Amino acid sequence: MIIVFRTNEEAQRVVNKLIALGMQNVFVHLNRVAIAGYKQVQDLPQSIQADLPTDIEIELAPANAVQVSRAFHPEDTVIKTKHSTIGGDHLTIIAGPDSIENSAHIDYMAQTVKELGSTILRGGSFKPRTNPYSFQGLGKTGLVYHREAADTAELDMMTEIMSTQDFDLVDEYTDIFQVGARNMQNFSLLKVLGQQMKPVGLKRGMSATIDDLLNAAEYIMAYGNPNVFLIERGIRTFDAKYTRNTLDVMAVPVLRELTHLPILVDSSHATGKRNLVIPGARAAVAAGAQGLMFEIHEQPDAAFVDGAQAITPTVLAEALPGIRQIHDLVEE
Amino acid sequence: MIIVFRTNEEAQRVVNKLIALGMQNVFVHLNRVAIAGYKQVQDLPQSIQADLPTDIEIELAPANAVQVSRAFHPEDTVIKTKHSTIGGDHLTIIAGPDSIENSAHIDYMAQTVKELGSTILRGGSFKPRTNPYSFQGLGKTGLVYHREAADTAELDMMTEIMSTQDFDLVDEYTDIFQVGARNMQNFSLLKVLGQQMKPVGLKRGMSATIDDLLNAAEYIMAYGNPNVFLIERGIRTFDAKYTRNTLDVMAVPVLRELTHLPILVDSSHATGKRNLVIPGARAAVAAGAQGLMFEIHEQPDAAFVDGAQAITPTVLAEALPGIRQIHDLVEE
Amino acid sequence: MIIVFRTNEEAQRVVNKLIALGMQNVFVHLNRVAIAGYKQVQDLPQSIQADLPTDIEIELAPANAVQVSRAFHPEDTVIKTKHSTIGGDHLTIIAGPDSIENSAHIDYMAQTVKELGSTILRGGSFKPRTNPYSFQGLGKTGLVYHREAADTAELDMMTEIMSTQDFDLVDEYTDIFQVGARNMQNFSLLKVLGQQMKPVGLKRGMSATIDDLLNAAEYIMAYGNPNVFLIERGIRTFDAKYTRNTLDVMAVPVLRELTHLPILVDSSHATGKRNLVIPGARAAVAAGAQGLMFEIHEQPDAAFVDGAQAITPTVLAEALPGIRQIHDLVEE
Amino acid sequence: MIIVFRTNEEAQRVVNKLIALGMQNVFVHLNRVAIAGYKQVQDLPQSIQADLPTDIEIELAPANAVQVSRAFHPEDTVIKTKHSTIGGDHLTIIAGPDSIENSAHIDYMAQTVKELGSTILRGGSFKPRTNPYSFQGLGKTGLVYHREAADTAELDMMTEIMSTQDFDLVDEYTDIFQVGARNMQNFSLLKVLGQQMKPVGLKRGMSATIDDLLNAAEYIMAYGNPNVFLIERGIRTFDAKYTRNTLDVMAVPVLRELTHLPILVDSSHATGKRNLVIPGARAAVAAGAQGLMFEIHEQPDAAFVDGAQAITPTVLAEALPGIRQIHDLVEE
Repeated sequence: MIIVFRTNEEAQRVVNKLIALGMQNVFVHLNRVAIAGYKQVQDLPQSIQADLPTDIEIELAPANAVQVSRAFHPEDTVIKTKHSTIGGDHLTIIAGPDSIENSAHIDYMAQTVKELGSTILRGGSFKPRTNPYSFQGLGKTGLVYHREAADTAELDMMTEIMSTQDFDLVDEYTDIFQVGARNMQNFSLLKVLGQQMKPVGLKRGMSATIDDLLNAAEYIMAYGNPNVFLIERGIRTFDAKYTRNTLDVMAVPVLRELTHLPILVDSSHATGKRNLVIPGARAAVAAGAQGLMFEIHEQPDAAFVDGAQAITPTVLAEALPGIRQIHDLVEE
Repeated sequence: MIIVFRTNEEAQRVVNKLIALGMQNVFVHLNRVAIAGYKQVQDLPQSIQADLPTDIEIELAPANAVQVSRAFHPEDTVIKTKHSTIGGDHLTIIAGPDSIENSAHIDYMAQTVKELGSTILRGGSFKPRTNPYSFQGLGKTGLVYHREAADTAELDMMTEIMSTQDFDLVDEYTDIFQVGARNMQNFSLLKVLGQQMKPVGLKRGMSATIDDLLNAAEYIMAYGNPNVFLIERGIRTFDAKYTRNTLDVMAVPVLRELTHLPILVDSSHATGKRNLVIPGARAAVAAGAQGLMFEIHEQPDAAFVDGAQAITPTVLAEALPGIRQIHDLVEE
Repeated sequence: MIIVFRTNEEAQRVVNKLIALGMQNVFVHLNRVAIAGYKQVQDLPQSIQADLPTDIEIELAPANAVQVSRAFHPEDTVIKTKHSTIGGDHLTIIAGPDSIENSAHIDYMAQTVKELGSTILRGGSFKPRTNPYSFQGLGKTGLVYHREAADTAELDMMTEIMSTQDFDLVDEYTDIFQVGARNMQNFSLLKVLGQQMKPVGLKRGMSATIDDLLNAAEYIMAYGNPNVFLIERGIRTFDAKYTRNTLDVMAVPVLRELTHLPILVDSSHATGKRNLVIPGARAAVAAGAQGLMFEIHEQPDAAFVDGAQAITPTVLAEALPGIRQIHDLVEE
Repeated sequence: MIIVFRTNEEAQRVVNKLIALGMQNVFVHLNRVAIAGYKQVQDLPQSIQADLPTDIEIELAPANAVQVSRAFHPEDTVIKTKHSTIGGDHLTIIAGPDSIENSAHIDYMAQTVKELGSTILRGGSFKPRTNPYSFQGLGKTGLVYHREAADTAELDMMTEIMSTQDFDLVDEYTDIFQVGARNMQNFSLLKVLGQQMKPVGLKRGMSATIDDLLNAAEYIMAYGNPNVFLIERGIRTFDAKYTRNTLDVMAVPVLRELTHLPILVDSSHATGKRNLVIPGARAAVAAGAQGLMFEIHEQPDAAFVDGAQAITPTVLAEALPGIRQIHDLVEE
């Protein structure tokens, strides 16, 4: 339940009282108070009910994922990093290879990413692979290469964290944490990422509903970190013959209405096919995406992982101006 | 299997020979020959194999849905009607109410549709309703009103046919047949529509794979009618809380690669929510859709059927210029 | 809305009054009155509300699929045909080839089916094939063979009808109509089958919800035919590598609670794999299925259609006693 | 690729040579050698090919999840714990509350579970909750209560582990680790559980394919722990109105054919509805399940978590004899 007060002071006064009464999971944002787990005023303690001003508005939904909701926080969240702005009417471009392969390669990728006008260098050093015998990433060595490449090119570094046990290591290097689709409901990991303040890019799980995704983001905010952005990356449906996943492009406007957090789209994973990445990216911004995530590789067929969905820097460079035009047209 | 010959004459010669040998389901388009059910040259009759030129190319896939395939017919199919052009680099706008409600209303709708620059007036007189006690459409009376309204406004009329038994009646009035998602694999209906030459707008079934859709279109072509266009209208997935269906926007570029038939998107049905129709339409053209289908109503909440997904003519009028810009940008 | 009265007479009296008031879609079964489209007593005409006894019970759900609901008709529907009993605590076995292939073969199959203790001979003469160039069934010739075979072996004949235009022809021969998954929402066909009294076996559509299936059955009952039984045959999900469809075995107890109509399972189509047909049948009866449908063929690999899912009569003969034991154990 | 040799000695000899050549991911079981990542003999080093006996058999599939495959290990894996036997023709019953609530309650539950003839006491102290503000389990306190209750009643203790960081703590108490559906592809956790030898009950993810599940189990085996059993607990499909998930009962016979690991079914989670738990359990054993997992509670509506799917001990006690009969009938 979200209660909208006439003034910030009234909101703060009620929150103080609720906390004094021992209530938990109560949050305030300007003149709005969120009380997790409550659906109506009648369920609140009597003394609070009696004390509420009469000219409040109640936003019933959602009962639970309150801090992420636009009802609680009407204005867009805009996340600032050293090199990037994520959210609002910005179009954030994240690009890089699927995996860190070696030092020279990520350096070259970083330079390319910079030239594309992107500000965030992605790349995996810990790879969530379906099969245990597949390449699992370079680990710490990869992080070192990635950091150096990002620094040299003056880019933010973004990399996936797969486990709480890797937190200290990954945290030593990265600027932005990525949580992969398979870990979207790894609640232990979400809690750890909620207890620090670096931005977290949270990918939607393969069969996660919109509500599941919002609840996962709420975990991070509940533990104190408001710097979360969401990434649609395709869902699992009945037809996987021509695309690896099904890009749920309508999740973008749905999420933009429900939450203030920035919404990005990874059309590389969503489609899994090189020739669909650009159409997917265009559709994403046309639907309101505030950012895009691309896997690039100068020789996609030689990529260590997922070459089938990597596009060349040249392809991306040619497509970006049109993508930006669509974005601007939609944001007007 | 598709065999590409050097010349049209060679292709025709081989086809004649195959037919003389009693082979069925053999088709020729310029220098390309499609033989349904065959996957490789080695499976053909010996005498044909011996007689094939050496410089042919073989397109293995698809084995079955051959006439609809771009491998057989590389150039886009463009369907011309009295008022419309569907396919190629045109952007076809189909609009109208979900159901024909009365004469005055469809007349008003027709005028509005005309002013929007759309050329096809949609509207249902036979409605596929989940429940038997719901409004089932005005039937013949609706067709009469629809025809008059379309004629007065100089628009093409497009309406749904639900059964072979309605063919003569619907055929007396409509310019374009619509096959609904629930009838996509009503093979008897597809055969009847294949035996006449009016255009058929074939909607993708709720859980139809891309291959299912292409095979359904092949039914119509197999019986003689090449004037088919395909309409993505959302698929059924695990999350239907915020959208009625999941718009499979990537089906658009996938289909444009696999088939020469025009690909349209109905973002009204795909999303089922008024505020998502325009974002869905933008995403569709950004992904390469050659046309859009809209349910409009001047008072959506008073619509007989599916008011929740109807938009007002004003909303559409404001959005169309931007949609056309995206379309032009992508088609360049 | 279902209203439960103390006596049948009271129920009849209210129904008479409702009909006199011009209300439609009102049905009575003993002391229960169903009013389609109404959710609460307050929505009824004032004069009816004033006249209702005070000791009625209201069953709110479902609003629409009322005649099929167990709330309206608490006792199991039991359908009697010349040779079979479908529903209640009977276990109905339907068996036969996927397609009628020729006279001798269906005669042989009929004999085999008889020996298995099954009472219904299935077989398709009109086949819903995904691709237009596939074998489409023998048509009328197949119906003739099928009828003769069933008569000779003293079995009921059950065959699929795909279109309203085939009704007179199929009706001339068959005892039981089958509606396939792809036609579950072919509402024109359902209406025609509702206007006659032969039993209809209605297969669940590939992505039909439980409510969709009940509404489809309601179409048949709404037009006058109460002899409907439902067949779960697998749904479409994200994994089709090892089974053609996903047998939704829990649909059986769910449906048995919601409806009085008999619930059968076709584990041949649900699994699509020979070695899974018997485990699927066992699971079905363990979950409460009142009948089973099998595709059999003495040489599965030589079957015209779907040989991969056909089992031999020997396999079925060996498995049936165990299946019957599970059924009896569960029905106790 | 699995290579079947005539003798164990031959198999061992080839493995030794492969390892000497520096090949990784090579495993031997009696006369069978698994080489992960290889699909055919022609891909092996020349010297190995030259040296292979001629009378070997090759099992091509699967390429990757080799150690879990029945092709590699034809006989059923049977896991022995202090009180239980899991796998083979045993029917293992796991029961207990969803969550550990307090000491007295789990003691009472343990006594009840014992009386039911079950040998494993389940119960969660770390709960994977969708929403951060829900009850998250008693943590260490719960583990202590759980351990004491299990010891007193002479039962094995089984509890969920959600994160690598909890390993030492959970390991101090539990006999059997449970990995929940949301963590099925938490590869870091799987690796840690692979590096110890206690049995691991691995639940299938909500949208995990059969192959995904086998690959997840392979992670545990790849790191050294062969004591893995798999638990089907329902998948996410398009219809969640009447059941929380869709019990994929055919996954049971499919998995029993593909793998030697024991296959259990959790019909509490699969259905999410109290009245469907027993039908689901019956269907599971009818399909070949080697064990069942139940959530029980003496007052389901007062349960801390998921009371809607808990059954009372009485209901389970009445159903178990019939379930065992079906199991015996199928195992014969």
